Amino acid sequence: MAEAEAINIDLEIIVHGAQGRSKPELRLWLRMLSTTKLISQEIRRRLRTEFGATLPQFDLMAQLYREKDGLRLGELSKRTMVTNGNVTGLVERLEADGYVRRVTPDGDRRVTVAKLTDVGTTLFATMAAAHESWLQDMMADADPRMISALWSEIGAVKTSASNHLSGSAYE
Amino acid sequence: MAEAEAINIDLEIIVHGAQGRSKPELRLWLRMLSTTKLISQEIRRRLRTEFGATLPQFDLMAQLYREKDGLRLGELSKRTMVTNGNVTGLVERLEADGYVRRVTPDGDRRVTVAKLTDVGTTLFATMAAAHESWLQDMMADADPRMISALWSEIGAVKTSASNHLSGSAYE
Repeated sequence: MAEAEAINIDLEIIVHGAQGRSKPELRLWLRMLSTTKLISQEIRRRLRTEFGATLPQFDLMAQLYREKDGLRLGELSKRTMVTNGNVTGLVERLEADGYVRRVTPDGDRRVTVAKLTDVGTTLFATMAAAHESWLQDMMADADPRMISALWSEIGAVKTSASNHLSGSAYE
Repeated sequence: MAEAEAINIDLEIIVHGAQGRSKPELRLWLRMLSTTKLISQEIRRRLRTEFGATLPQFDLMAQLYREKDGLRLGELSKRTMVTNGNVTGLVERLEADGYVRRVTPDGDRRVTVAKLTDVGTTLFATMAAAHESWLQDMMADADPRMISALWSEIGAVKTSASNHLSGSAYE
């Protein structure tokens, strides 16, 4: 997670202007990117200072919190965009801390799933509530009506982008 | 760059609902994050297939394109959010390909700066124009007036977030 160590530089200012007069789509993209990085860095910082946690740990626990029956490590890797090898390390660390345990479901000894422990469940609920309040705090100066409108407007951008993907998964 | 290898999973669907009823700020954040990841993955894919380039290479060349006098590697690292060690490798690779050269400015033999070569400058201009057109393509289904409005609305979110940062750099 090299990003976590990056100093807080405003990507928008730096990248912007590579071509002089930018098209509105490029301007919007650079603004979205820089805003996302700014908020993401702040969330990383607060997770670290308030919970001693990393963003990958938080994301992994969020997945397990949703799936009460637990998840196989391969599935956890896909859902968190953490590589398989790193998921194993993350789970082992959370297991050592008592927040996660690995169990073999009845009937199939070849399968191992990771689950949150009761302590892990309580901790994640606390972290999730804090995470939500940090976002409220960070967006406190923006008009609440605008925040709701932005959700659907960015949804239109997302839908458009989804309709114009070129990758092998889509052709 | 582990993200580059990640399969295309919609983070918003997965993370959303960890707490059941989410606040508007959390919903907006998850949507911004998932939209940024979606577009970012598509840009990585197109850079790879159309130019055989990576996003860190593109970002690094963008910085050098702006700074005709070149940049020291430490400065390049800060501006691209690539670690110092990785910047050296990136610059060496681009130098071997003939797109970048390292020079010692007159008067200070201890300093080395990286610059784009003429070939590198031409290549980056082509890549930047393609990058801009990909974004226009991806946002083609969204109302152009909305795209301009979004730029300033997301600006309000960014300003709010900037006003509520907690890190050591701000306290």
